[in-house]
Amino acid sequence: MEPQNKAMELYTYFRSSAAYRVRIALNLKGLRADYRYVHLVKDGGQQHTLEYKAINPQGLVPALVDQGHVLTQSLAIIEYLEETHPQPPLLPKDASGRARVRALAQLIACDIHPVNNQRILKYLEKEFGADEAARNRWYRHWIIEGFNALEKLLSGNPATGKFCHGEQPTLADICLVPQVFNARRFEIDLAPFPAIRRIHDHCLTLKAFTDATPEKQADAG
Amino acid sequence: MEPQNKAMELYTYFRSSAAYRVRIALNLKGLRADYRYVHLVKDGGQQHTLEYKAINPQGLVPALVDQGHVLTQSLAIIEYLEETHPQPPLLPKDASGRARVRALAQLIACDIHPVNNQRILKYLEKEFGADEAARNRWYRHWIIEGFNALEKLLSGNPATGKFCHGEQPTLADICLVPQVFNARRFEIDLAPFPAIRRIHDHCLTLKAFTDATPEKQADAG
Repeated sequence: MEPQNKAMELYTYFRSSAAYRVRIALNLKGLRADYRYVHLVKDGGQQHTLEYKAINPQGLVPALVDQGHVLTQSLAIIEYLEETHPQPPLLPKDASGRARVRALAQLIACDIHPVNNQRILKYLEKEFGADEAARNRWYRHWIIEGFNALEKLLSGNPATGKFCHGEQPTLADICLVPQVFNARRFEIDLAPFPAIRRIHDHCLTLKAFTDATPEKQADAG
Repeated sequence: MEPQNKAMELYTYFRSSAAYRVRIALNLKGLRADYRYVHLVKDGGQQHTLEYKAINPQGLVPALVDQGHVLTQSLAIIEYLEETHPQPPLLPKDASGRARVRALAQLIACDIHPVNNQRILKYLEKEFGADEAARNRWYRHWIIEGFNALEKLLSGNPATGKFCHGEQPTLADICLVPQVFNARRFEIDLAPFPAIRRIHDHCLTLKAFTDATPEKQADAG
């Protein structure tokens, strides 16, 4: 048995959006985790090693180890943190507000991010001979399509505040900020998305968000 | 204001995995919803109409309307049903069990299904000239990769029971059954996935699952 007070361990990679989400959530809740770095490019991708796949058979980051339990999938990990450490809350109290926040998060975490995952881009290159320009078009296409819908959902709803939902950061903001990071990395023009930009910029006034950015990680470079 | 006792409305398409999940969840909880059919192929895709996009700007099914609230994203909808109608529960009681069930669900709902979505297959055809054989290889590749990990997570964990987690159906089973339907539709050999097959077959002994199958829907055909 693991001792109850052992620090959590987060398997992370600086540039992984999904790991970035969990880093923000840990910071917002003031929780400490020891970071274990899994380099997704070096050595042909350390996530493919037998050693890492014994932790997460899916070979994806992040994974969080807490009290001997290995947790995978960023949104499931964040819901777990919410249930085990409820303060400050990352979901609103009312069921329809919670559904809205989860839907905004899933629009990003299900419908944009996995389609642009490294494993997908590699397949496009290998199977369809997609060159860098074609892969970049792909990457931008799914972000822009997703952001068009996200912008409407944010700008057209009075529940949107300084953050995606009201005046406190939620799971939706935790997903939005890493996705905007990716959008900028691929030089997407964010002018058509003023609500997304405004919320992103507001999030980055908080240390919990800035401490989690890729460039601040010990494995960055 | 909508009257409090108005029936829920589910925007659905018989072959949509995500709508199929919500149909199962409604059935498991014994909830009635009036089905509104959105044909994803006819008329160039009824999900793209202005009328439907006024309901869901993302132009995807399902959407659930309850008490005047429009809910989108299948997992967010099911969590909402779980919070508003807790019996029978679709998530276990303990936080680590809940995290496991959500992670299994998200392995399917984030990492397999969106990558094989119709909009993705259309892009492959249009931008990369992928013919039907190439699109089918793509489709099978992501299911097999995901099922390899899912099979390990199911077969290697004592928490797996007759269902993905214990002896009652959960959110994980709700995602598994529609994904197996897709796998069979694309003639994937399921012999390497005995735990997935066993759980799938067990789910289909329940009327809540069989009533939700694509072929039983009024819009099938």
